[in-house]
Amino acid sequence: MTLASKLETISGIPITPFRQSDGGIDWNHYEETLNRIVEQGIEIVVPCGNTSEFYALSLDEAKEEIRRTVEIVNGRALVMAGIGYAVPTAIELGNYAKDAGADMVMIHMPVHPYVTSGGVKAYFQDIIEAIDFPTVVYFKDPEVSDQVLVELAPLEHFIGVKYAVNNLPRFAKVVRSVPKEHGVTWICGTAEKWAPFYWNAGAKGFTSGLVNILPGKALEMLEALRRGDESLTWKLWEEILPFEDLRAKYNQGNNVVVIKEAMEMIGQNAGVTRAPVDQLNDEDKQLVEEMLQNWNLLQPTKG
Amino acid sequence: MTLASKLETISGIPITPFRQSDGGIDWNHYEETLNRIVEQGIEIVVPCGNTSEFYALSLDEAKEEIRRTVEIVNGRALVMAGIGYAVPTAIELGNYAKDAGADMVMIHMPVHPYVTSGGVKAYFQDIIEAIDFPTVVYFKDPEVSDQVLVELAPLEHFIGVKYAVNNLPRFAKVVRSVPKEHGVTWICGTAEKWAPFYWNAGAKGFTSGLVNILPGKALEMLEALRRGDESLTWKLWEEILPFEDLRAKYNQGNNVVVIKEAMEMIGQNAGVTRAPVDQLNDEDKQLVEEMLQNWNLLQPTKG
Repeated sequence: MTLASKLETISGIPITPFRQSDGGIDWNHYEETLNRIVEQGIEIVVPCGNTSEFYALSLDEAKEEIRRTVEIVNGRALVMAGIGYAVPTAIELGNYAKDAGADMVMIHMPVHPYVTSGGVKAYFQDIIEAIDFPTVVYFKDPEVSDQVLVELAPLEHFIGVKYAVNNLPRFAKVVRSVPKEHGVTWICGTAEKWAPFYWNAGAKGFTSGLVNILPGKALEMLEALRRGDESLTWKLWEEILPFEDLRAKYNQGNNVVVIKEAMEMIGQNAGVTRAPVDQLNDEDKQLVEEMLQNWNLLQPTKG
Repeated sequence: MTLASKLETISGIPITPFRQSDGGIDWNHYEETLNRIVEQGIEIVVPCGNTSEFYALSLDEAKEEIRRTVEIVNGRALVMAGIGYAVPTAIELGNYAKDAGADMVMIHMPVHPYVTSGGVKAYFQDIIEAIDFPTVVYFKDPEVSDQVLVELAPLEHFIGVKYAVNNLPRFAKVVRSVPKEHGVTWICGTAEKWAPFYWNAGAKGFTSGLVNILPGKALEMLEALRRGDESLTWKLWEEILPFEDLRAKYNQGNNVVVIKEAMEMIGQNAGVTRAPVDQLNDEDKQLVEEMLQNWNLLQPTKG
């Protein structure tokens, strides 16, 4: 089984717990979270993903998160380390992940405000060739041409795409444009809400932030999709939808804080988010509470 | 004259020249560029701005650009150093700029994909309070509320806003919402193309990438705006428009490379861009050439 084919599963993105007191990372709680995720059967974990608040970490903290993840996971799952920023910085982080024992890296989309499709292709290629290590590309800028992926596909170490432009015909077209012999695995980059649609279009894996709270439910969906059990797939999809919709609120501003709030409500230690994300407002806290009650994770507080 | 009131001028963003051979920074050519800008009368220079390809620099390179800018400028202009990324990283860069002798910093918009307005306010405030140094905020995300700026305005070290959401009524409203006694200067963050409109709405300064090629023309526009000379303002605006439109092409993908290409064509040493920006295509090269001919900076090649 190739590493690329092992991507046909859930990529679980752990949150990074920050202390309320001083904003520092609580590594003990990070270890608890990671253990819960891998003990319940998630096969790939992604430190320094967006749900890990990668862009709120210093480079030293990002490196420490990668190193500790490899140590904590200790072979129980594959580690796909998120890397990014300027090319020289991404290479530095990628080489660090490789030396620390990660199994592969995921390159975030460049944060540069002025990109061209040719430039984005060069960006990914320069990093992949410099670190010489299995790489997944996180593709989420609708302004960038899919041709970038077609052109990167022949690279030996380019093993997968976490696709996050929610345009299904566009996605299906690029999947069909890349010859199978290049061994590129397609992953739905927008979690359970979109996974069934991407599945039909050729993505046999999906990312998940839900794994921080209910890894079992994410795995149930994976199994239902694999078996082609449509009735169970849509039942799970309906159960998960309010959670993902709440995360998507405020142009995704709620993405991470909803997970952390839910974890705290059910007694898991998630801590707070860091700026530029702030606390959940009272209305949304109420919605998280109701959702957890519907999931039977919380007793009703009233009536 | 307060530092804030000194912002009522042109903020010139120098390009960072990269060598074609190895992609490294050519500091001699950077010095040439910077000297040309300040010798012709630009009063504020912004190392590590977007036109400097800040997001293509490693942190060490960003620091070196700030340090060298202070040394080269040597008091002939004010230095506003661009800083950004995660809060701890921005604080590190800000303290570096302060120690290196910059006059102020400009905080880029957070690159985090999940932001809330409250979180963005906390982001800027945390950085400004930690570095305790005069700060301009670069505001360009239309999804973030202007209320952030209203709430930051009372901070002692918050002296200006480089506003880059091209919605003039929205801009005029926020300018009028911030009491004058807070001493906040408003700068048009989208250069000569938008400067006349922002001027009417309360921005008595603007950013410029044109200064790399024609600092005199940018200064002419500033003077025309100051004198209220509408006929000259619009004449200059029409001359500059093709340049700014070409920079805006491909969702701003051309922003920097058009400047570098034009500089190279007239014998200035600008070098190449770094990924995720690539070379200019032949069609656009032709347009740059025609534009330079219209500006009488280049002899016609044909006819």
